[in-house]
Amino acid sequence: MEKVNLSEKMSRIPDMWRPRIVAELNDTYVKLVRMQGDFVWHHHEMEDELFMVIKGTLRMQLRDRDIILNEGELLVVPRGVEHRPVAEGEVEVLLLELKSTLNTGNVQNERTVAAEWI
Amino acid sequence: MEKVNLSEKMSRIPDMWRPRIVAELNDTYVKLVRMQGDFVWHHHEMEDELFMVIKGTLRMQLRDRDIILNEGELLVVPRGVEHRPVAEGEVEVLLLELKSTLNTGNVQNERTVAAEWI
Repeated sequence: MEKVNLSEKMSRIPDMWRPRIVAELNDTYVKLVRMQGDFVWHHHEMEDELFMVIKGTLRMQLRDRDIILNEGELLVVPRGVEHRPVAEGEVEVLLLELKSTLNTGNVQNERTVAAEWI
Repeated sequence: MEKVNLSEKMSRIPDMWRPRIVAELNDTYVKLVRMQGDFVWHHHEMEDELFMVIKGTLRMQLRDRDIILNEGELLVVPRGVEHRPVAEGEVEVLLLELKSTLNTGNVQNERTVAAEWI
């Protein structure tokens, strides 16, 4: 039972688009991820997903509109909703996901990674 | 499906120790709470609880030690672990809790409140 310093953890993540687990509670993982560039369109069949911007600006593309998230803002993408995170500059993001959630949702390709603890 | 600005939501909370729900995903609520002073000792029988400090400093008292949480730090208090949040100055905290979680856990007294959406 130790506290987690978000900046300290984030500074130890060397790569983009590879979420790291920093905490777990109940059936949920808290993850941190650095993003830059475009991700893939995907959805999660049975799982809602939360994005909270720690630093930078994230554009969440949906099929009918974009939602811009700045530092201190969060968005829940409900299950079944197609989305694509786009980061024009570098963005630091906190994710809340069920332990069962795969980063690319219904898509499996070279961007699919299993999250590891950091 | 709308984004949540944490500062904006927090500025609309007029009272201490009354968590407000700002988002839900899966079986979890995201809540914001302002704290000042001492809370009650309690634990949650079956539910882990996450505290993330948005502003200020929170002292989490445990039976065997205290953990000090500053801005940008989080702590998961596992189920069954007795704890008491203490805020010497005013603190703004984000909570992650199961929808079933009661703020005072195993204790029900005048500090027990049902969380409402804000």
